[in-house]
Amino acid sequence: MRGFSQSIAFLRESPTRRIDAIRERLKREKRDIINLSAGQPGIPPPIEVRSLLAKQLVEDNSMELYGYTPSQGIIELREAVSEDLKRLGGIDVNPDNIVIITGGQEGMFATFMTILNPGDEVILLDPTYFGYKPIIEYFGGKIKRLGLSMENGFKIDIEKLKELITDKTKALVLVSPDNPTGNIIDRDTAKAIADLAVDKDFWIVSDEAYRTLIYEGEHTYIYRYAPDHVISINTFSKDPGIPGWRLGFIYGPSDAIPKLKLAAEEMTYCPPVIAQKFVAAYLRSEVRLKHLKYIIEEYRSRRDAAVKALREYLPESRFVVPRGSMFIFVDLSHYIRDSERFAEALLERYGVTVIPGTYFSDIYRSAIRISFVVESIERIRMGIERISNAINDLRGSL
Amino acid sequence: MRGFSQSIAFLRESPTRRIDAIRERLKREKRDIINLSAGQPGIPPPIEVRSLLAKQLVEDNSMELYGYTPSQGIIELREAVSEDLKRLGGIDVNPDNIVIITGGQEGMFATFMTILNPGDEVILLDPTYFGYKPIIEYFGGKIKRLGLSMENGFKIDIEKLKELITDKTKALVLVSPDNPTGNIIDRDTAKAIADLAVDKDFWIVSDEAYRTLIYEGEHTYIYRYAPDHVISINTFSKDPGIPGWRLGFIYGPSDAIPKLKLAAEEMTYCPPVIAQKFVAAYLRSEVRLKHLKYIIEEYRSRRDAAVKALREYLPESRFVVPRGSMFIFVDLSHYIRDSERFAEALLERYGVTVIPGTYFSDIYRSAIRISFVVESIERIRMGIERISNAINDLRGSL
Repeated sequence: MRGFSQSIAFLRESPTRRIDAIRERLKREKRDIINLSAGQPGIPPPIEVRSLLAKQLVEDNSMELYGYTPSQGIIELREAVSEDLKRLGGIDVNPDNIVIITGGQEGMFATFMTILNPGDEVILLDPTYFGYKPIIEYFGGKIKRLGLSMENGFKIDIEKLKELITDKTKALVLVSPDNPTGNIIDRDTAKAIADLAVDKDFWIVSDEAYRTLIYEGEHTYIYRYAPDHVISINTFSKDPGIPGWRLGFIYGPSDAIPKLKLAAEEMTYCPPVIAQKFVAAYLRSEVRLKHLKYIIEEYRSRRDAAVKALREYLPESRFVVPRGSMFIFVDLSHYIRDSERFAEALLERYGVTVIPGTYFSDIYRSAIRISFVVESIERIRMGIERISNAINDLRGSL
Repeated sequence: MRGFSQSIAFLRESPTRRIDAIRERLKREKRDIINLSAGQPGIPPPIEVRSLLAKQLVEDNSMELYGYTPSQGIIELREAVSEDLKRLGGIDVNPDNIVIITGGQEGMFATFMTILNPGDEVILLDPTYFGYKPIIEYFGGKIKRLGLSMENGFKIDIEKLKELITDKTKALVLVSPDNPTGNIIDRDTAKAIADLAVDKDFWIVSDEAYRTLIYEGEHTYIYRYAPDHVISINTFSKDPGIPGWRLGFIYGPSDAIPKLKLAAEEMTYCPPVIAQKFVAAYLRSEVRLKHLKYIIEEYRSRRDAAVKALREYLPESRFVVPRGSMFIFVDLSHYIRDSERFAEALLERYGVTVIPGTYFSDIYRSAIRISFVVESIERIRMGIERISNAINDLRGSL
């Protein structure tokens, strides 16, 4: 019988894709849309590295830039990543423990494909990145939520976490710097979680997509504290800023690596060679730290402008100033109730895209996620002013 | 409990990867290795299109070349593919029925992820491409084999096919032009299979990776005969020759498309934007047909040289001269028994890589697959001469 898989029903279109589709339609209607939704950098990768690649494209007539690579990734990139983790994080990760992947999404899918059996429990924080739920459910995992409180700076309560752990707990997903809150897990909390993972023997799936985008404080590499229990998922989408090129890396203990590599190989055979060569050159180039400093300063000033505008235009909004990532998670419960309906009306009538809090949380249903990396300072201010106008107009009805 | 998925055990490293690893080691030992194993073109994509891309890399400072794309692929590429299918195949495929994918491997994985339920039966030809078995088994499918006979030109016997069909038959996998035999399914056979698929209501998974690499005859687009029952898997790895960039496309009926798109989105979010822009420019450029003509003539002359050398150095070998693809499937049963042991000895001692027949077949266990697209004519001859030397030296022991 022609027909379809039953499990595929667990997969749903990414909610940001729905916002994207409405935005595309409005753009075709020549509407001016302010993008405060996308987790996509507004700054392209450094021209020095792009020029190197351009030269090789024209001058090299071998298959070097076009051929398949080992499925684990080319050795020069795995070595460059290992050096980068040592330089920025002070951790030792052997290039053999690194698998280059076709973007963070493949890293997430490969990780749960590798570790989950039907009935396993996975603990997700609330709020957290919405990409995990469909993958975990697709592989038959059961989700348990650990609610975080904005008042408490989204800090993880270790005692509450302990209460959720059973003999079926397979993994805990941490996102730090966080999407959507911009929060960073501090060293002591990371250490306590790592100890718990070792003691109770579960995986920490550590999503470190934003590890280099830190505005205050520093990134905690939790692998340091529980190297046999951490699978770390990383991407080059945010830095050097090639989200559409699909490249990232994962690292973890030696017994997990061959399985993660096989899962990725079965899905995509090998990661894109042109992106691998590009990032290997970037990580080892002199411009790497300079570019990082530049984007951090740029995004920090945009964040500050967004915070200022929020305080000015939406004085009753509540948020924790993000110390990393690309987002501010703004609770609008003083003004509105239903963030999904608000986000749609905001886009259709006021031309501003944001992501509703319901996509990240069962608790913060009146929150929105604002991205501060796509638009200029001027347009971020304008976008937040439009949000304020929308609230004034729609207040009674939402 | 930390630990791993049980189903992941169905996944095994691609056998070509094992050959690759031995080859890499011998290369480090400075051995001269003749590559008659890889399905990777030896000719890079046309310089005109590479130059265009190089220019944009240097001159365009927007995120156009770096950002995420719709998960189904950019519309200009889907339109270009639709035009290309019309121009080369005379078939009408709406751009909405095309999903751009991150390489043919993702197309295969997404297809079975979309259609298979545990216990479903899938019919594979023997010999056939080895990539299908692990994916089908991973999703709980049961494989039934339809043996083809070299004497009969690997022609599919429709009556024998009918005998394999039960009420659990979910799909039949066809690879044409074929890997490993280079055979092309003729129009009448395609029509008969299509009728059967409609009548018995099963999917035809039509792998058309080599559709533009035809040396005699023409490619049959089976979608034409059963548009509601065909999912067609295609790649840009072979033409324009960017295997390491990971890009391909699938097309099929409207009810399958959203599910295929979701499966691919869950694995990789979107296909690589730089490859999408590059191929859209290629398909619509004036050099497209010129380049195709050039690579076909070049590969045909290499095929002819390989055929000549086989007849000269291995007169008792049996094969059907391939009318398409990149390979000759050579039965060496007059000389050897165990193609796996032979291939390993051939590589270690004589420096030639081939793929053993056992990877493709339960029947042709003394065959090898020879690729004629990687090496020059001179080195193809040299490689086949070395195979003959190996046979003379090892004959008694294998």
